[in-house]
Amino acid sequence: MSSVFERRLEACRNHLERVGASLLVCFPSPNLTYLTGFAESPSERHLLLFVAQTGDPVLVAPTMYDRQLAALPIDDPALEVQLWDDEDDPVELVDAVVETLLSDVEDAREATDADAAGPAAADPDAADPDAVDERSGPTILVDDRMWATFSQDLRACAPDATFGLASGVLEELRLQKDPVELEALRRAGSIADRVSLEIRSRGTELVGTTESELVAEIERLLAAEGGVEPAFETIVASGPNGARPHHHSGDREIESGDPIVLDFGAFVDADLEDGTARYPGDQTRTIVVGEPSATYTEVHEIVRDAQQAAVEAVEPGATAGSIDRAARSVIEDAGYGDAFTHRTGHGVGLEVHEPPYIVADNERELEPGMVFSTEPGIYLEDEFGVRIEDLVVVTDDGAERLNDSPRGWETGDRYRPT
Amino acid sequence: MSSVFERRLEACRNHLERVGASLLVCFPSPNLTYLTGFAESPSERHLLLFVAQTGDPVLVAPTMYDRQLAALPIDDPALEVQLWDDEDDPVELVDAVVETLLSDVEDAREATDADAAGPAAADPDAADPDAVDERSGPTILVDDRMWATFSQDLRACAPDATFGLASGVLEELRLQKDPVELEALRRAGSIADRVSLEIRSRGTELVGTTESELVAEIERLLAAEGGVEPAFETIVASGPNGARPHHHSGDREIESGDPIVLDFGAFVDADLEDGTARYPGDQTRTIVVGEPSATYTEVHEIVRDAQQAAVEAVEPGATAGSIDRAARSVIEDAGYGDAFTHRTGHGVGLEVHEPPYIVADNERELEPGMVFSTEPGIYLEDEFGVRIEDLVVVTDDGAERLNDSPRGWETGDRYRPT
Repeated sequence: MSSVFERRLEACRNHLERVGASLLVCFPSPNLTYLTGFAESPSERHLLLFVAQTGDPVLVAPTMYDRQLAALPIDDPALEVQLWDDEDDPVELVDAVVETLLSDVEDAREATDADAAGPAAADPDAADPDAVDERSGPTILVDDRMWATFSQDLRACAPDATFGLASGVLEELRLQKDPVELEALRRAGSIADRVSLEIRSRGTELVGTTESELVAEIERLLAAEGGVEPAFETIVASGPNGARPHHHSGDREIESGDPIVLDFGAFVDADLEDGTARYPGDQTRTIVVGEPSATYTEVHEIVRDAQQAAVEAVEPGATAGSIDRAARSVIEDAGYGDAFTHRTGHGVGLEVHEPPYIVADNERELEPGMVFSTEPGIYLEDEFGVRIEDLVVVTDDGAERLNDSPRGWETGDRYRPT
Repeated sequence: MSSVFERRLEACRNHLERVGASLLVCFPSPNLTYLTGFAESPSERHLLLFVAQTGDPVLVAPTMYDRQLAALPIDDPALEVQLWDDEDDPVELVDAVVETLLSDVEDAREATDADAAGPAAADPDAADPDAVDERSGPTILVDDRMWATFSQDLRACAPDATFGLASGVLEELRLQKDPVELEALRRAGSIADRVSLEIRSRGTELVGTTESELVAEIERLLAAEGGVEPAFETIVASGPNGARPHHHSGDREIESGDPIVLDFGAFVDADLEDGTARYPGDQTRTIVVGEPSATYTEVHEIVRDAQQAAVEAVEPGATAGSIDRAARSVIEDAGYGDAFTHRTGHGVGLEVHEPPYIVADNERELEPGMVFSTEPGIYLEDEFGVRIEDLVVVTDDGAERLNDSPRGWETGDRYRPT
């Protein structure tokens, strides 16, 4: 049985054929992790994955990675590994790999053309092997994050090629999460849920705690619940600090009556033999320790309704922009349109922020398996902020929430399950 | 008085003129930090520094960075900051900046040509403004680490330009450290020295400690001595694990008689007003807790002699390759040539690994102010490894070591100052 990575590599090859590209080249990035399970930081050493329209993918890597690569859940020949030593010239190796792969793709195309041509292949012009040189050169798609030093090498290897970005193909593949990814994202969501419930239950015990102390406590709980590490900078924004959507938590002490925006999540490891792919949680709740103001409770309900409207608008065929409009119109109708200062959401997968972006002008149609955040907010300068965020998966007929802890502001004794 | 960054930007412009490039574009990277003091991680948001041969540099950045950028120790107009909001199209802004800067460079060149031409400028052909279009297009140097998504945007902005890498100019500038950098590197070296002395003094107390525990202790000491954070993965490789140059420390317990390779260093902040540039320490010592074997002491002396030979070979005008050969020939003459499996060293600056690389075929001539490691080693599979490493600065007539803690194997009561 082919592994999840073999299936993804095969899907990548099929997409290359569909868009007419000969070759796709990945650099250490989420794209490389997606296709091979290999997670590594970019460095000055040549580590490149070549996926050609035909033939087996080739991974060029420094010898020092040999053991890590041998542990990948993809066997040769589904992935051919070519190692280079300190005394080798990696550019020569890359040159040879590109030449071989492009020529294999060309040979396969000629064979297909000859088949398609049928009897006409006897035409001396059509049979002329030089005739293919008259075509435009091959198209090579490079990882959007490939360093210029490597993309320039590739341009030198294939001077007649047209260059594009790998996201054209890989974004499509990565948008629809497969079962392994959904399982990890559900697990990450559930960890965030449990931590947010625990913090909510503490109620007025939180008074006197600084934001930074609460950040540390949340991160401790995320780890205790099975998170590998925080997926992004944990946000604890209390009282007026909540009015800044990306507040960096500091030494402000939480006071009685404070609304507190809690935005956090942890990575979990996907259940992939030896793969090291990590998927994040990302949840926001706004709670109040003690007694909220009347304005607060009104604004909280508006944001909650807006978030609910966003989730209800999710279904296959709806555009990403329509989800933004569903949330935004609730807030605008309530008279707080100017206080909702950011997009409604972002896709989540190997990256915490990835397509689809839930923003007004995004006409992309939703499809089952896409995962994104729905996180409207209202920010009142010098007063408070409210944001409520769940991750959702597009299903065959709607949305599945990956977070399901209470969305109200009540804490401690005031907390009532919703 | 112009700041260190204004001087570096000015030097960059002068180098651009010397190599005939019109424009250099940096992406978040050590190059950007070097030129502006601004340290930021790469992201999908356009954050680009444009340094043209003439005129003031322009930094294009998302509005969210406005406060950080205002704190940079470079004043407008020495650096012009152009911010973009979420509702702007950053590609349009980049396009406009590139067009303006390239046309300013062209205007300046025409003015210079006209001056140089003197009376001949009356020649209608020479005065024809369209004549400049007959020249080859401008040369644009992009940050070696710029993501393909941004370098492709630049290619689209300037379709007639020739593209090269910024390292062609910035590597030259960054090779020779300025006083601010040397002060930070000396401080980082001294921190590593003090921690290595402390570990050495513990002698047989280390028996029974695991490698990972010793890593944690070293990193605690580095922080206590003023290090900001470890500059790279701290290596504690005990007994046979020492035979792997890049061993990942694990739960092996240190035994009496074990040689232990200790390779570590911490970053320190450079003394730059509000700049956030960090410089690393990088030192290796190999110590023995208890009584070493006769083979061990022999091999330790060979490595120590090789390291000494490398340092003694350092002087302005010597090639990087000659330093490698100085160390390697000592080890080869002793019959261990095959057991010295890596290069002799690497440059150190804003990056832990940067030019000059101390490798056999590097013909680059050393100049005062260059800083690099000298770290020969001998690795005997299943037995032990020895590596001794100091950072050195090239001086006017030789080398200054940035590390000066003892290089012997003796520990605890056996430790004798050298």
